Amino acid sequence: MQTPINKRKIFNDPVYGFITIRHEVIYDLIEHRYFQRLRRIKQLGMSHYVYPGAYHTRFHHALGALHLTQLALDELCAKGHDITAEEQEAVCIGILLHDIGHGPFSHALERCLAPGISHEFLSELIMDSLNTEFKGKLTLAIEIFQGKYHKQFLQKLISSQLDMDRLDYLVRDSFYTGVQEGSIGFDRIIKMLEVKNDELVIEAKGIYSVEKFLVARRLMYWQVYLHKTVLCAEQMMVKVLLRAKELAVAGADLFATPSFRYFLYTDVQREEFDSPYSDALEQYLRMDDNDIMASVKQWVYHDDVVLRRLCKGLVERKLYRVELFNEPISDLHVMELREKAQKQFAVSDHELDYLVLQGSTSNSAYNMDKGNINILFKDGTLKDVAKASDQLNIQYLSTPVVKYYVCYPKESN
Amino acid sequence: MQTPINKRKIFNDPVYGFITIRHEVIYDLIEHRYFQRLRRIKQLGMSHYVYPGAYHTRFHHALGALHLTQLALDELCAKGHDITAEEQEAVCIGILLHDIGHGPFSHALERCLAPGISHEFLSELIMDSLNTEFKGKLTLAIEIFQGKYHKQFLQKLISSQLDMDRLDYLVRDSFYTGVQEGSIGFDRIIKMLEVKNDELVIEAKGIYSVEKFLVARRLMYWQVYLHKTVLCAEQMMVKVLLRAKELAVAGADLFATPSFRYFLYTDVQREEFDSPYSDALEQYLRMDDNDIMASVKQWVYHDDVVLRRLCKGLVERKLYRVELFNEPISDLHVMELREKAQKQFAVSDHELDYLVLQGSTSNSAYNMDKGNINILFKDGTLKDVAKASDQLNIQYLSTPVVKYYVCYPKESN
Amino acid sequence: MQTPINKRKIFNDPVYGFITIRHEVIYDLIEHRYFQRLRRIKQLGMSHYVYPGAYHTRFHHALGALHLTQLALDELCAKGHDITAEEQEAVCIGILLHDIGHGPFSHALERCLAPGISHEFLSELIMDSLNTEFKGKLTLAIEIFQGKYHKQFLQKLISSQLDMDRLDYLVRDSFYTGVQEGSIGFDRIIKMLEVKNDELVIEAKGIYSVEKFLVARRLMYWQVYLHKTVLCAEQMMVKVLLRAKELAVAGADLFATPSFRYFLYTDVQREEFDSPYSDALEQYLRMDDNDIMASVKQWVYHDDVVLRRLCKGLVERKLYRVELFNEPISDLHVMELREKAQKQFAVSDHELDYLVLQGSTSNSAYNMDKGNINILFKDGTLKDVAKASDQLNIQYLSTPVVKYYVCYPKESN
Amino acid sequence: MQTPINKRKIFNDPVYGFITIRHEVIYDLIEHRYFQRLRRIKQLGMSHYVYPGAYHTRFHHALGALHLTQLALDELCAKGHDITAEEQEAVCIGILLHDIGHGPFSHALERCLAPGISHEFLSELIMDSLNTEFKGKLTLAIEIFQGKYHKQFLQKLISSQLDMDRLDYLVRDSFYTGVQEGSIGFDRIIKMLEVKNDELVIEAKGIYSVEKFLVARRLMYWQVYLHKTVLCAEQMMVKVLLRAKELAVAGADLFATPSFRYFLYTDVQREEFDSPYSDALEQYLRMDDNDIMASVKQWVYHDDVVLRRLCKGLVERKLYRVELFNEPISDLHVMELREKAQKQFAVSDHELDYLVLQGSTSNSAYNMDKGNINILFKDGTLKDVAKASDQLNIQYLSTPVVKYYVCYPKESN
Repeated sequence: MQTPINKRKIFNDPVYGFITIRHEVIYDLIEHRYFQRLRRIKQLGMSHYVYPGAYHTRFHHALGALHLTQLALDELCAKGHDITAEEQEAVCIGILLHDIGHGPFSHALERCLAPGISHEFLSELIMDSLNTEFKGKLTLAIEIFQGKYHKQFLQKLISSQLDMDRLDYLVRDSFYTGVQEGSIGFDRIIKMLEVKNDELVIEAKGIYSVEKFLVARRLMYWQVYLHKTVLCAEQMMVKVLLRAKELAVAGADLFATPSFRYFLYTDVQREEFDSPYSDALEQYLRMDDNDIMASVKQWVYHDDVVLRRLCKGLVERKLYRVELFNEPISDLHVMELREKAQKQFAVSDHELDYLVLQGSTSNSAYNMDKGNINILFKDGTLKDVAKASDQLNIQYLSTPVVKYYVCYPKESN
Repeated sequence: MQTPINKRKIFNDPVYGFITIRHEVIYDLIEHRYFQRLRRIKQLGMSHYVYPGAYHTRFHHALGALHLTQLALDELCAKGHDITAEEQEAVCIGILLHDIGHGPFSHALERCLAPGISHEFLSELIMDSLNTEFKGKLTLAIEIFQGKYHKQFLQKLISSQLDMDRLDYLVRDSFYTGVQEGSIGFDRIIKMLEVKNDELVIEAKGIYSVEKFLVARRLMYWQVYLHKTVLCAEQMMVKVLLRAKELAVAGADLFATPSFRYFLYTDVQREEFDSPYSDALEQYLRMDDNDIMASVKQWVYHDDVVLRRLCKGLVERKLYRVELFNEPISDLHVMELREKAQKQFAVSDHELDYLVLQGSTSNSAYNMDKGNINILFKDGTLKDVAKASDQLNIQYLSTPVVKYYVCYPKESN
Repeated sequence: MQTPINKRKIFNDPVYGFITIRHEVIYDLIEHRYFQRLRRIKQLGMSHYVYPGAYHTRFHHALGALHLTQLALDELCAKGHDITAEEQEAVCIGILLHDIGHGPFSHALERCLAPGISHEFLSELIMDSLNTEFKGKLTLAIEIFQGKYHKQFLQKLISSQLDMDRLDYLVRDSFYTGVQEGSIGFDRIIKMLEVKNDELVIEAKGIYSVEKFLVARRLMYWQVYLHKTVLCAEQMMVKVLLRAKELAVAGADLFATPSFRYFLYTDVQREEFDSPYSDALEQYLRMDDNDIMASVKQWVYHDDVVLRRLCKGLVERKLYRVELFNEPISDLHVMELREKAQKQFAVSDHELDYLVLQGSTSNSAYNMDKGNINILFKDGTLKDVAKASDQLNIQYLSTPVVKYYVCYPKESN
Repeated sequence: MQTPINKRKIFNDPVYGFITIRHEVIYDLIEHRYFQRLRRIKQLGMSHYVYPGAYHTRFHHALGALHLTQLALDELCAKGHDITAEEQEAVCIGILLHDIGHGPFSHALERCLAPGISHEFLSELIMDSLNTEFKGKLTLAIEIFQGKYHKQFLQKLISSQLDMDRLDYLVRDSFYTGVQEGSIGFDRIIKMLEVKNDELVIEAKGIYSVEKFLVARRLMYWQVYLHKTVLCAEQMMVKVLLRAKELAVAGADLFATPSFRYFLYTDVQREEFDSPYSDALEQYLRMDDNDIMASVKQWVYHDDVVLRRLCKGLVERKLYRVELFNEPISDLHVMELREKAQKQFAVSDHELDYLVLQGSTSNSAYNMDKGNINILFKDGTLKDVAKASDQLNIQYLSTPVVKYYVCYPKESN
């Protein structure tokens, strides 16, 4: 009398307790090697240098977002909205695969190894490929994912300023980093979900939860995602990849795993990914954190002083010193830092760009232009949360905060 | 070799794990009947009508605030600030006794039974009385408590916008109500405490935690402390007490426990409390939630229709209906409600004031005028958090939010 | 399009997050004054003297057990078992009302004020009364509750060694006392539930969870429910009630709330409860913790030295000293303690029984004779958990542990 | 006035909140590349295949064990035991480095790549090497670690059946796997620590916590560490390494990172590690999870059918099917499985040993022969916990449980 095991797979999750897989196709997608690969890609790239608990993977995040999506669908159905079994399955597929295109250390990789090829582009490509393999079972999911389905609110569960992706990553990242202040009331937010005019909205009594969510998100950005040490490590990784590629192009010999080598020594163009069975895509899908780290570890012993210093920094956690400012950094200050570094390492002006790293980063807690959060009042009216809050000035939260950084080697190492 | 048990008492606390009592005098104060009485006074009065987990007591809150104070003192000492053992003990006594003057359902009681006699006034009176009994051992504690001691920052641990009282009650109330979004990063805030110019301040990197604290506090106010149903229950209790006193003065017979009767049938003046051994004080200290509830329960069967309806409301949770508005309520609307109630209950105009309750409530998340929160920057400068935040407009949070309510009996009961 | 609010009531629960009420009749039962009364009866009577967080109520426990029952029913349905909507509602009613007959400090009360009248007897009486009031809507629930329904496994959810009552009280009591070691994996146990031969059983892979549950339960018994200080307080309460009744019968004047007075001054017989509208039942249903405590507090000032000492002990937490032994206590030792107490208090031999309290308590973690826990193996066979465990000797856990205690006043107070 | 940042480093820990580093030498050891390397070695090797949250590292575990050791030392000092500042620092160093010798997937590695070279042996070697580098600052720590110091109880904090290593790994592994039932009351156990006759013991009132600890540990073994799927994955990794080495010895070309290649292609003898600056040790210390996984991933495309199947199994989570029994498996059954596999893969008899894996595993919850747990009664007597428990038959828990497994490829992949 028991349902076949295949259909009722349960995952243990420290965050939510248990995650139940309800659809067979979901189960099969999880088993697919493209998805299994996400087990080897950390969700938070470099954040573990500051938060040693933050080793959770994109695999786990995708499962978590799936779980929240199921809860949200249950809630909306219980409130009387008509969502068919097919639509439910499709939304679940959509959220499960929303990040399938991510590679290892994506932010660094996208900028260096295959410029112009974003993980969003790859996600859609991979979904298409999977759809072929699954004989069209993902068609509706892809339609919803791309916002082409007539029930727009379904897509908002996957992508908006209060989507299940964000909900899960905030909850999960705050859990694994131990930054408890970043935690949000995901269960209450889900209980407050409603649909009005084909929009996903929040009931008025949930407004404080939304405020709290925005402030928690802002905190997570500055305390975790854009923490100055994390920022520095990420910039160093970017520079490692740029330098390695530069050396490779110049004909230097660099140890690398085969797939990583493919991207180091080839000038991959977007077109080369075009077919779902392209070599470029296959190599991309074979790469994960292990490829990068196994190679970077080796480069600690490379001849190139610049590459060596950067890699040693990442492997032995001898990171650069970081300075963070609210205003643009004076050229004079940067010049002084460059001079010092040049003395220390005896490198060319060009090479100095790998030692003294400069840039800016920005974030806004709320974006008034895209995927807004609307509040539903008892009289049926809707208001943007930025205008609905009686006190917290959310309009302020929508002004981007920009910070300027400079990173450079400490003198002692 | 073991320290006598008396000196190392440990309390289990679901919130913090274990609370260790370090000072013998603290232990003796906890054992005193004045303090034991706080075991029978709920911290959140009426909130359990909405949050059925919220039965924690003032006793437990006082222990919790003591625990956080000990952690804060440890932190400040570890940072090199000189705080003597005597001062530490005194601050601990101060926080332990900061609410010792609270009676049952204080907010209702203070306004009705002994008008003009605040719990703050009573706290100081009781501390004096205890000091006599403890032969002066509380002298320094009282000095600090009253802000008369030369190290001002010590008092700020007991009373300011970021004192250990607030930290504990937010953590504890959010824990027991289950409103997890009200939780704050108390441990991180404590790690960020510093002293500068004899002020208690927060290190700059703790600014997001302070923002989060203010938003969480705001959420707790509107979602718990001033939740419209809680508000309604509190107003009904106020009216119960006013009506009972009115009837008592008029000579009616009302069941009440002896101490409660004392306050019902006597017109107690502030002067009567003056001596620490006054009859008024003794009766006050014998009263707790049981006295009020045991009496109110009986009044469900009283002849007076108004008292009966109010008491039945509290005992059987047949609360009035509440309407909450952001603007003052129109006289017309109130008049209509009064008319309906008059028809339903056949009461006089004066009695209608017990059936249709009207008023306003307000809260500001941050107060720019008193006990400010100052942020300490690396260059040694201090800034009010309202000005230090780079984005969250805390100045806005300091504007009081006012809400207007009207409560009235449902027709069905 | 939204379901009427009445049908989707949500309670905040610090333990489970949210508890959703799914059936209208459940909602109406919760609103009934018989059930609301459970808000004023502490689940753990005296345990808060040791664990100051333990003020949770029977009201909250009943909601929690309801929640777990709903989860268990969901799980069994998902596994393909056929449970009709009517049956589900009935099981939910059964678990909601399983403890409706409890009075304040039940264990003390049952033995003293109305001997021979158990809370189980009263529960059934009250259910009958409610069934009349609810026009037969509880009939199926009562049938299941009494084990008269043909699907026996439904009753096991309400009453067996692994019922939802136990699951909730262990989780909840460990949560509120802060004895985290008493926590159990309720969610995993529920996921492992199965039905076989009309029995509620546990899948084989859940066996470690059951072992853990039994050990946690054992720990909760000795560390919380039968903690020696809790035991002492309970015995003191028993003696308070016995003494008060003795004095009342002898014609002494005792302050008491009217309902409590009814039981103090009347010799209530079981027959008097017989009708659902009996005076005895009505008085019983008006009583709660407030009646007892408001009265006990007054008796601190009574003339009777014995009553005074006992009540002062409970009110000011000047509890007796307790000694706990694994073997029966020697008469000699007890005699010495009685002599000392007689000198201290100058009381008669009869009165000494109120000052030196003696007795035994026992518990077994598992009971092999009643409501057994059966394990379901993959080949379809069932085994009692006591025999199924490959190592933990659960048969041992079924031997009752007996402990002997004696309590007596400390000399200092 | 603030202590230099270097001395008061704080780590965020999702498990304990904050971990404070108190000693400068500890800080410097954490910064050392030998220790930083533990960031890239998962604590639970293969368990994430079953528990997708279990990616925590040996780095984090070492910090956690350090934290608990500091708490335990505080507790013992507070109880009046004399432990000098030097001794405290030394114990902290000892616990921090207790696992420093672990390599990636240690259990597999030790048996295959460098047989006879245990991580314990390597830990001591590395500690010696660090001691030289730190100019003797680790001498006392090593003495304590090796049990040569006259205060024996200090070593028991690092290594016994209730040491801080076990406490942390049970807490941490249960946290990250989400197997909440494996959680233990570490804080209560630490509060119950005492020293008697130079032994580390537990106060009698902590006995239930010890029972709970043993049962939780047993549960963690069978549910996590020896979970049949985890077991299977580990055996597959063992076979991968054995096959790879076999192929390497036979002259096949295998992609591998340089350090890993060193161990694949060299027959490393124990003597070669002897000097702290040996090439063998240096190569060992350069290896981590990335080396193994980056290589294994590549072998999915190797010519050898056996290696290919095994590696594909690990990389794409196409694990073998596992059968687990309480008795030895019949030869007949294994023969049948081998025949089937031979048909499917067309391999030699020798190669079949890589496809049908057979063996046994065992665990006892308590070991009566080594590092016993003694309970201290109020009269000063000590008893082994196995005899002190009044009911739970811990002697039973000390009988090892043996389970027999056979793993083999599913037909479908």
